[in-house]
Amino acid sequence: MFTALEVSQTLRKIRRQNPLIHNITNMVVTQFTANILLALGASPAMVNAEEEVEEFVQIAKALVINLGTINAPQAKAMQLASRTAHDHHIPWVLDPVGVGACTYRSRVAVELLANHPTTIRGNASEILALYALYTQQASHHSGHGVDSKDQPEQALEAAKKLALSCHAIVSISGKTDYITDGHQVIEIHNSHIMMTKVTGSGCSATAITAACLAVETDALAASAHAMALIGTAGDIAMQNTKGPGSLQIALLDALYLLNEDQLISQTNIKLQ
Amino acid sequence: MFTALEVSQTLRKIRRQNPLIHNITNMVVTQFTANILLALGASPAMVNAEEEVEEFVQIAKALVINLGTINAPQAKAMQLASRTAHDHHIPWVLDPVGVGACTYRSRVAVELLANHPTTIRGNASEILALYALYTQQASHHSGHGVDSKDQPEQALEAAKKLALSCHAIVSISGKTDYITDGHQVIEIHNSHIMMTKVTGSGCSATAITAACLAVETDALAASAHAMALIGTAGDIAMQNTKGPGSLQIALLDALYLLNEDQLISQTNIKLQ
Amino acid sequence: MFTALEVSQTLRKIRRQNPLIHNITNMVVTQFTANILLALGASPAMVNAEEEVEEFVQIAKALVINLGTINAPQAKAMQLASRTAHDHHIPWVLDPVGVGACTYRSRVAVELLANHPTTIRGNASEILALYALYTQQASHHSGHGVDSKDQPEQALEAAKKLALSCHAIVSISGKTDYITDGHQVIEIHNSHIMMTKVTGSGCSATAITAACLAVETDALAASAHAMALIGTAGDIAMQNTKGPGSLQIALLDALYLLNEDQLISQTNIKLQ
Repeated sequence: MFTALEVSQTLRKIRRQNPLIHNITNMVVTQFTANILLALGASPAMVNAEEEVEEFVQIAKALVINLGTINAPQAKAMQLASRTAHDHHIPWVLDPVGVGACTYRSRVAVELLANHPTTIRGNASEILALYALYTQQASHHSGHGVDSKDQPEQALEAAKKLALSCHAIVSISGKTDYITDGHQVIEIHNSHIMMTKVTGSGCSATAITAACLAVETDALAASAHAMALIGTAGDIAMQNTKGPGSLQIALLDALYLLNEDQLISQTNIKLQ
Repeated sequence: MFTALEVSQTLRKIRRQNPLIHNITNMVVTQFTANILLALGASPAMVNAEEEVEEFVQIAKALVINLGTINAPQAKAMQLASRTAHDHHIPWVLDPVGVGACTYRSRVAVELLANHPTTIRGNASEILALYALYTQQASHHSGHGVDSKDQPEQALEAAKKLALSCHAIVSISGKTDYITDGHQVIEIHNSHIMMTKVTGSGCSATAITAACLAVETDALAASAHAMALIGTAGDIAMQNTKGPGSLQIALLDALYLLNEDQLISQTNIKLQ
Repeated sequence: MFTALEVSQTLRKIRRQNPLIHNITNMVVTQFTANILLALGASPAMVNAEEEVEEFVQIAKALVINLGTINAPQAKAMQLASRTAHDHHIPWVLDPVGVGACTYRSRVAVELLANHPTTIRGNASEILALYALYTQQASHHSGHGVDSKDQPEQALEAAKKLALSCHAIVSISGKTDYITDGHQVIEIHNSHIMMTKVTGSGCSATAITAACLAVETDALAASAHAMALIGTAGDIAMQNTKGPGSLQIALLDALYLLNEDQLISQTNIKLQ
């Protein structure tokens, strides 16, 4: 399940099936996320009014919930959409942006866990904070907004325990990405440090995770394939990049042009 | 009215008059739409609070209403702004994004028709859905979010009838664009398929339609010229493009640099 | 305080300290602003719910308040965040986008002045309008949305008086930028006219001002250094630019790569 060839098969399925991905996400990354999903071969939609999310999510193949710029109306829509997704067996991904930095979003994140996300994807600081909040340990305050101050390795044990407690896949992004169901751990050694200088690169990984879950029923494999896809596209994009401006453009082009040969030669994915 | 030379004259008027275009649009495309209008030579503003839209629209030369990410406060602002626009003879364009996919936005779209849009611009699925809703036929559910699953040709008859019923121009974007007042039909054979891989390319067409309506009183001509402008700029942009990332950047550059020679040699516009 | 060398030292401090910048800004420029701050070396966050801004701003090193697309909930969050920033001696910057164009935002802007912005940064029309509103002169209506119709020179006297009345730095962007505390005036002669064709270039200047205030205690110097940084990066970016699309990308790359040699050879900053 964890080879570049299988990553390539998941990508082919996305391009063939063009799955509708419902995103309730933050206002910083809406455009970039939509463009990432289009470049990948999926069909994005950003419906987020409480009046329509329950109806809309039912025609979607997967749902993204991203807490980046939540407010009360959006939190309500997220609750409705994720509950409906769970009730209808539609996979959904939680991106707990900035969890631990503020009391409000920490509470919203923990409440959303009750709707059983298929995958939780965040940076190391977010996974550490979410696990601490979930187990009612003294809340972990990152004190630094939305960028991670911890290394992925430091969050791996918390990720495993969170995965087991929530019956979810947990996906930690960083220099090495770790994806776990609590038992198995997949490592991805792609993705350049400059990617952290493009806003929304983490949020894009989340959206791609949703697209993979839409076409691949093994959630651990789908979540790992997603990190392999963005990591490899990022590495290819870096070859034609002078700085973070040209990187975001090159990333969209690379994702659109990504093929099996590139994945086989450049994707570094392995079961731990 | 329907030659490349006249398209060029409309562009020249926009650049000279720098019309203020008021946009109440979705959160995915706000930045791209503003950049498209600036590149074209217009002056965009995105005011969308109910406290100020009535006052603001009166200093604008045209209004865009785009349903992409509506919620209740924005729907109220759209109602106020479009009514004021109509009362003050300010042209306005309705982009019924995703109409038919959800009950709420379908209802909002039909209610907005009461304020007499100058032009309705959408993809084939949206025009088919809006016509069905307007005539209270069984609602047409696209079942696929915001990307069109129908070809423009399939929507042409519905577009003509909708135009006649609403006394509006109806503009369908697709491989071929069709613009009709219910009697005459203009065809534009520009615009590359990769444009559908850039989010907001349809929304940009809507914003450009508003800019053309701001300077050209013949609404059918203005609406057709808009599709010719973005289609031709898109074709030029494609020449320097590797994927959808570089396409969106090249499109802004091409629009900014677009000149009469390019329009005359590359615009494919004709009266049916 | 007002040499290219000192601009370079401020940039170095930002890159070393990676200050968290809290932005409550408009929905057009959120992504671009975040990317500008990341390229500069700061850490942006866009938290804007009334439930969390007071808590979040206390871990930030500076705050941006930008009125571009305000509505009632956001105006409340702005009031709470800026009051907390003032109470905790956290520098904050007011960008009064479109002030004077609508009654509502004019009132909000004047109310925010009560929380003592460290710096007010706007275009000439906005500074003229804000000064007129603050002194309860007949309100200055620009009648043209958010793009300036006045030259910076015309706003300099108003800027000085506003600075003295509010005990704030006032920073006017334009062909020449003027930054004043009411006594001293700094001029920056960088920044190309095409920058006005990229949406959010003014808003980016505001965000960079906040990043400079986060690391440099002299507010006049910090505000001037910010305009020098974006102006110089803009000039460098123009060298590889065909239009406003490629300019916005080149600007991010140039800001990321900006070094002392470039600043010393290209920054045109002087005390008047």
